[in-house]
Amino acid sequence: MMDSQIAMIGLGVMGKSLALNLLDHGFNVTGYDISQQNCTRAADEAQPLSEQMDKGQFVLARDLTHLIESLVPPRVIALSVPAGPIVDSVIEDLISAGLSRDDIVIDTGNSLWTDSEAREHRFAGKLRFFSTAVSGGEVGARFGPSLMASGDKEAWNYVKPMWQAIAAKVDVNGLPVGPFESGEACAAYLGPAGAGHYVKMVHNGIEYADMQLICEAYYFMSCALNMSANEIGQIFSHWNQGVLNSYLMEISAEILQTADPVTGRPFVEVVLDKAGQKGTGLWTAVNALQQGVPAPTIAQAVFARAQSSQKSLRTVASKTFSAQLSSQGALDKKQVLSELHDALYCSKLTVYAQGFDLLNATSKKEDWGLDFANIAKIWRAGCIIRAIFLQDIADAYLTNPALDNLLLAPGFVEQLLARSPGWRASIANSALYGVAMPAMSSALSYFDGLRSDILPANLLQAQRDYFGAHSYARVDEDESLRYHLSWSCKTKQQIIV
Amino acid sequence: MMDSQIAMIGLGVMGKSLALNLLDHGFNVTGYDISQQNCTRAADEAQPLSEQMDKGQFVLARDLTHLIESLVPPRVIALSVPAGPIVDSVIEDLISAGLSRDDIVIDTGNSLWTDSEAREHRFAGKLRFFSTAVSGGEVGARFGPSLMASGDKEAWNYVKPMWQAIAAKVDVNGLPVGPFESGEACAAYLGPAGAGHYVKMVHNGIEYADMQLICEAYYFMSCALNMSANEIGQIFSHWNQGVLNSYLMEISAEILQTADPVTGRPFVEVVLDKAGQKGTGLWTAVNALQQGVPAPTIAQAVFARAQSSQKSLRTVASKTFSAQLSSQGALDKKQVLSELHDALYCSKLTVYAQGFDLLNATSKKEDWGLDFANIAKIWRAGCIIRAIFLQDIADAYLTNPALDNLLLAPGFVEQLLARSPGWRASIANSALYGVAMPAMSSALSYFDGLRSDILPANLLQAQRDYFGAHSYARVDEDESLRYHLSWSCKTKQQIIV
Repeated sequence: MMDSQIAMIGLGVMGKSLALNLLDHGFNVTGYDISQQNCTRAADEAQPLSEQMDKGQFVLARDLTHLIESLVPPRVIALSVPAGPIVDSVIEDLISAGLSRDDIVIDTGNSLWTDSEAREHRFAGKLRFFSTAVSGGEVGARFGPSLMASGDKEAWNYVKPMWQAIAAKVDVNGLPVGPFESGEACAAYLGPAGAGHYVKMVHNGIEYADMQLICEAYYFMSCALNMSANEIGQIFSHWNQGVLNSYLMEISAEILQTADPVTGRPFVEVVLDKAGQKGTGLWTAVNALQQGVPAPTIAQAVFARAQSSQKSLRTVASKTFSAQLSSQGALDKKQVLSELHDALYCSKLTVYAQGFDLLNATSKKEDWGLDFANIAKIWRAGCIIRAIFLQDIADAYLTNPALDNLLLAPGFVEQLLARSPGWRASIANSALYGVAMPAMSSALSYFDGLRSDILPANLLQAQRDYFGAHSYARVDEDESLRYHLSWSCKTKQQIIV
Repeated sequence: MMDSQIAMIGLGVMGKSLALNLLDHGFNVTGYDISQQNCTRAADEAQPLSEQMDKGQFVLARDLTHLIESLVPPRVIALSVPAGPIVDSVIEDLISAGLSRDDIVIDTGNSLWTDSEAREHRFAGKLRFFSTAVSGGEVGARFGPSLMASGDKEAWNYVKPMWQAIAAKVDVNGLPVGPFESGEACAAYLGPAGAGHYVKMVHNGIEYADMQLICEAYYFMSCALNMSANEIGQIFSHWNQGVLNSYLMEISAEILQTADPVTGRPFVEVVLDKAGQKGTGLWTAVNALQQGVPAPTIAQAVFARAQSSQKSLRTVASKTFSAQLSSQGALDKKQVLSELHDALYCSKLTVYAQGFDLLNATSKKEDWGLDFANIAKIWRAGCIIRAIFLQDIADAYLTNPALDNLLLAPGFVEQLLARSPGWRASIANSALYGVAMPAMSSALSYFDGLRSDILPANLLQAQRDYFGAHSYARVDEDESLRYHLSWSCKTKQQIIV
């Protein structure tokens, strides 16, 4: 019986949710998992769906041979297994079980993009390797994720109808709609196999920074304006109606207005302030460093989590430096909130500029030809960083696909000109009132660095030439000409060949 | 004839300088290089030395067998060859040429510390692998470098007399003295083979940040106070007489007061403001990210170099945002300079705190037992970051070897309490006047984060629990207990096992 359109190997939270989503949209799915419990649970949840008209049929495979036999050729097999060597061993098992070279294997896990690149080469000629990074967590996978697809381009023809059906959708204004409403799907083919996981990695780097920025706005209101969590939540709800509208802003507003079920205190105040991390934000920061692309605000967000985890040290230091600040004047609450709003907007925009700059650099280096408007579009719904202003970003790249930096798009230039006074005032207050805002202040430094025709790297290059004879280029000659100054006599300039 | 105490393989700039330094201190040296030119040059420079009383004899080896035969056992062979696979192939050649298991091979190149660790395991039983990171460039290598030694502990007994003789030296006040004066040597055994190169890597990360901080002080004076390079150089000369005394401050003062021999303009103004890098600062930032240790200011320094290299983008952006700043009031020059001085001091101290925190974390993880006082001591002379306040750092760790963070040492607490108002004012001015100071402002954020008993990572953990069910710990229970809030009804808290 060959009547499944797709198989899902791995029926954990993500794999099961994707499978149910596929059934929901009428696709027949074969499921397989080495855990009997996962199989049973998936089958139990699939059954009521399969009994409905227009929904797909679900079948559990006994083994990989059975799984392969259940599929219409060319077979499409999605993997939702832990990233790393397990992906390779499952694919090897599939090849042994009889997969053919036209069949398509899709890695939907959280693989490192360079692993996906390596797999595309490794399995070439044995099968069509494909990858799809999935954003949106369990709920997204079940009711509409953002899908970043990449790999064998012809394979996309077979995958596309399914991915576009199950992905999150947006209306003509770029706003999310329900899973069964018509709209533009947040699923796109991005390039060779590494591209999908790379774009997702940068998405997560942006997500780290976006979260940290919101936390810093909350923190300043709490520390310097003495506002309660509930009141801050109300401000966030209000902000969520305007240019700052986003999923992360929405849930932050809700969280801040939530009471702890145990003590009745504001929920955030009972949560321990030590941040965990799963590594993708870190990968983004490392990649930016290695590529020489400035993404300082993403790195600051990762370091802020690291510093938060040094809780016992902080507790000691807070006592040592308790008398640290001389008394500051009272702040005008209304004005400060308006400034903070603008600081958050500008910082957030800057983080996206850094993220897209990184995408641009890697796209050029890897010759991927990434479509930045498309990437912004598939981030408008389904994923964690979904926000109203991703439509503005998409528009900016549609207007000028060769845009050098997002901050130079005319609409954003206008926003920055209007809102940067509030940004500057907020960072000045952060310094004067001693409220740490590492991500927002690094974003402002990035902006001020970007708009500086001359940076003090001239002195830095002179230092390097002085102590290490690293040579320098001149402003009045072609920069390919390198010179060294004879620092002992300073009247001779040598040409370095 | 076995009468050389050490051989140097690789007679390029660094290898030759170390060899001449050894001769200078009376050691007989065998030299070898595959380049005939390097051999001839080294021999030519060695000859006048060898003709003097009390200096060592230099002999060129025809091949590795000859080199081995020329050495007193246990043979000590230093390599000064490019980092990477060449190190391994030279060692393999030495083994083939008859090296015995008691012989000592020292890698003095710029190897990645994990490569040194791997080599210690790989060559165990075949020879005694040793590594020594050399700081101070060509002049340092010739007349007194800082030597960070590590590897086989017994090998150190044979290496120590030579390294202590050729290293830079300081007097009882911790100030550098000449190569033939008596003093404490800036050479120390640090631990297993990876330790030396690791400590050097962190040294270079600190160096990147230290350079950037000085550049930012110069930049603010230039942009916001309209001071000439020459005048700024004079201020730096003055600062170099006090707590900011350091090699980098000294050369920066000199550079700023140097005229371009071609145009007569201030030299820095003809140097193109695009910073290069060789990678060790980047390795430090990457390592900090991977280890989860907050070293944001080192990362900011690396990103500042990356942003400086986006020159054409900056030129465009500077025009776009030329009308960006509303006019600001005039600054009180004397006061601003005093504030900047304190900002530079506090930022620099913070960078060292981040660097030593990283050393501490890695020392614990790798079980190296690094001696931080010793590390500060061997950085007092010979290396690029040599500075008067490394004596204060050494004293802080001598007083309390288990110091959690450098900023908590009593002497530094006092400095921070006294100088942080100027630091805060400088960062506020940086934001308001639009002068990018990414490293200094990240240092202040780090300090303010450190002295915060509560950080907004509580909201961040709540966000992560909301969208990804990542769980949270509570402030009122043991942090090993993890919870998840049922966000849809918010009255149930589940325990995560």
